[in-house]
Amino acid sequence: LLVGISDTSLADSISLSQVASVSGADALVSAPPYYFATGQPELAEFYESLIPQLELPVYLYNMPSHTKVNFAPSTIRRIAENEKVIGFKDSSSNGTYFQQVMYEMRDRKDFSIFVGPEEMMAEVVLMGAHGGVNGGANMFPKLYVDLYNAAATQNMAEVKRLHAIVMQISATIYSVGSFGSSYLKGVKCGLSVLGICNDYLAAPFNKFDEEHRNRIRLAIENLPL
Amino acid sequence: LLVGISDTSLADSISLSQVASVSGADALVSAPPYYFATGQPELAEFYESLIPQLELPVYLYNMPSHTKVNFAPSTIRRIAENEKVIGFKDSSSNGTYFQQVMYEMRDRKDFSIFVGPEEMMAEVVLMGAHGGVNGGANMFPKLYVDLYNAAATQNMAEVKRLHAIVMQISATIYSVGSFGSSYLKGVKCGLSVLGICNDYLAAPFNKFDEEHRNRIRLAIENLPL
Repeated sequence: LLVGISDTSLADSISLSQVASVSGADALVSAPPYYFATGQPELAEFYESLIPQLELPVYLYNMPSHTKVNFAPSTIRRIAENEKVIGFKDSSSNGTYFQQVMYEMRDRKDFSIFVGPEEMMAEVVLMGAHGGVNGGANMFPKLYVDLYNAAATQNMAEVKRLHAIVMQISATIYSVGSFGSSYLKGVKCGLSVLGICNDYLAAPFNKFDEEHRNRIRLAIENLPL
Repeated sequence: LLVGISDTSLADSISLSQVASVSGADALVSAPPYYFATGQPELAEFYESLIPQLELPVYLYNMPSHTKVNFAPSTIRRIAENEKVIGFKDSSSNGTYFQQVMYEMRDRKDFSIFVGPEEMMAEVVLMGAHGGVNGGANMFPKLYVDLYNAAATQNMAEVKRLHAIVMQISATIYSVGSFGSSYLKGVKCGLSVLGICNDYLAAPFNKFDEEHRNRIRLAIENLPL
């Protein structure tokens, strides 16, 4: 159980980590402060201040579309000199960058590297990454576990069969709606259609209306699952 | 033999294609007009004007860092309704986008999809892409052909061995210099060090100085080739 502690404030990140710790989280996930864009030395210094004040191990989370900065591979290496930093999740969608991080950390067998975008999960696992933290896995966990296992065991026929279903989810569920929030609203609406949880979103977002919900319902019915 | 005809001017693109045609090119490569950023309908209309005026088949070239626009997958599909459009090269480095294009064009077995960044070549070929158009292949063609063949035949041990060499090229040759031109200058300087051609670059760029050239020479000597 990984809990996000990303915040623009160092003090609030620490408070969030304490709530996670007493609530039984296994580890923390932290994206950089996301209002002002940070430079690489500032990014390293932020984590060098934060990490000693955390009780749990931490995964670094690269989300440049929201934080306006990418962790440079050498910055990840510097921050990961602290053994409490046990891994990295990349949601940049940048496949070149992902391989550069893998290469930079190639001698750190104790350090895990995960990908956010599920469209890339199969290929990065084939190349040696440790897995995905994929939104769609909230709706269809077995599909994503099966795809991971197929890639980890290099069962290519199964990789291609299951990857095509993940691409259908991407093309038909995350494409509903017109804004940057489509993916988020699509997953939450899908979870509600499936009866897993309701589709309430924190401000500033609202759930999909009935027309959009019907498109999501139809997309789910059309999946070969 | 593929020849680029990218230009900001429709008339000049056509002229370039005529030179390519009489000089024996097999096909043309065209990135969108790259000064003003185009919208998707404008992009489609540009190619619907251009393509009937070309004698050779065409590959579309996605290079958003320079053209300020990505071909939407549906725009590629629309442009590729003309059978003279035989493929697509993507240099966005966006692995999610690449898979979305592959998914959009999945029923077009006659349409080829290539990746620009060599750091991603192995993984996309494993997932069914048709190959790479990789800068490093100018310096070390056998390495890239071997990596392609290993990925196309799913020889994973060989993929990982050769991919590590490609990543070493990326980390030690393309990282010399401080500007966006590092990759371009690195490839040209490497070609010169290897005695394949000189390192002259068209304006506004200049070749690396002696200090940078020595770093490139050392990087090449250190490759396990």
